[in-house]
Amino acid sequence: MFEKILIPIDGSEKSLEAVQIASEMAKVYESEIVILSIFRHHSMMERSFSMAGISKRTESLDETLSAYAKEIVEEGKRVAKEVGATKIKGVVRGGQVAKQILNYAKSNDIDLIVIGSQGQGDLSGYLLGGVSHKVAGLAKCPVLVV
Amino acid sequence: MFEKILIPIDGSEKSLEAVQIASEMAKVYESEIVILSIFRHHSMMERSFSMAGISKRTESLDETLSAYAKEIVEEGKRVAKEVGATKIKGVVRGGQVAKQILNYAKSNDIDLIVIGSQGQGDLSGYLLGGVSHKVAGLAKCPVLVV
Repeated sequence: MFEKILIPIDGSEKSLEAVQIASEMAKVYESEIVILSIFRHHSMMERSFSMAGISKRTESLDETLSAYAKEIVEEGKRVAKEVGATKIKGVVRGGQVAKQILNYAKSNDIDLIVIGSQGQGDLSGYLLGGVSHKVAGLAKCPVLVV
Repeated sequence: MFEKILIPIDGSEKSLEAVQIASEMAKVYESEIVILSIFRHHSMMERSFSMAGISKRTESLDETLSAYAKEIVEEGKRVAKEVGATKIKGVVRGGQVAKQILNYAKSNDIDLIVIGSQGQGDLSGYLLGGVSHKVAGLAKCPVLVV
C-alpha cells in the first residue's frame, strides 16, 4: 500500500521524528523511503538584482544552503538506518518548499508523505506549520502529520 | 505501533476513504479501529433559550442528529468489514467536532487518527477542512490526512 514514502525534512526535531515513524512503517510495508531536503534558491529569487556583487553573494549563499541541506539529508538517512529501514534515498532540491515537495511527490509516484507538524521556521503555538498545512491540504496522496 | 486507530467520520466521501485506508493498515498492524461520528449538540448549545417550545424542538433535533450519526457509524463499520478489518468499534458523541475527536483520542490512548482532508461542511478549494486542520495540528498522536 505504501511502496514509496516521501519524508521532507528540515532538520527540526519534528522532522526527524517523521523519519523515525516513516522508517518503522517502511520496515512493515517494505517501502522505499525518500528523504528530501529543500533549500531556498536565493540566486533564482534575486535574479532581478543587476549588481554583480549581489549576484555573486547569492550564488555562494545557494552553495552554503545546498551543502547544509545535504547534511540534513545525511542526518535523516542515519536515523532511518538506525531504525532499520533498508531502501533509503536522499534528495536535495532548491526552490519553494511546499511546491517542491508536492512536485516531487507527483512526479515520483509517492504513496505516502510523512511530515512534521511544525518545521524550523514555524511559530510554535500555531495549529500547523505553513508547509505542513499546504502539503496535507494539496497532496494527491495521504499525508501523515507527525 | 498503531494498536488503536481512530477514524472520525461524517459520511463524506473523503471520510469513507479514510475508513478504507485505516482498515488496510489495521489488517497489517492488527489494530483495533474506532469509528467515531459526532453530532452537534443543539439542546446544549441553545439552553439559553427559555421558551419551552424551542427547547423541545432542539431536543428532538438532537435525537434526529444522533440517529443520523449512528447510521454514519454503521456505514463506516460496513466499509471497514468489507476491507477485512476485524476489531471494529463504533462510537457516537455529541458536541464540538474537533474538540470531541481530540478528547476521545487523548482519553482512549489512540496511536493514530485517520481523517479525510475535507468533510461534508467544508468549502472545496480550501487547503484543509477546519476540523482536519485542528485535529492534525493539535493531536498528541500522528494524524493521517487522506
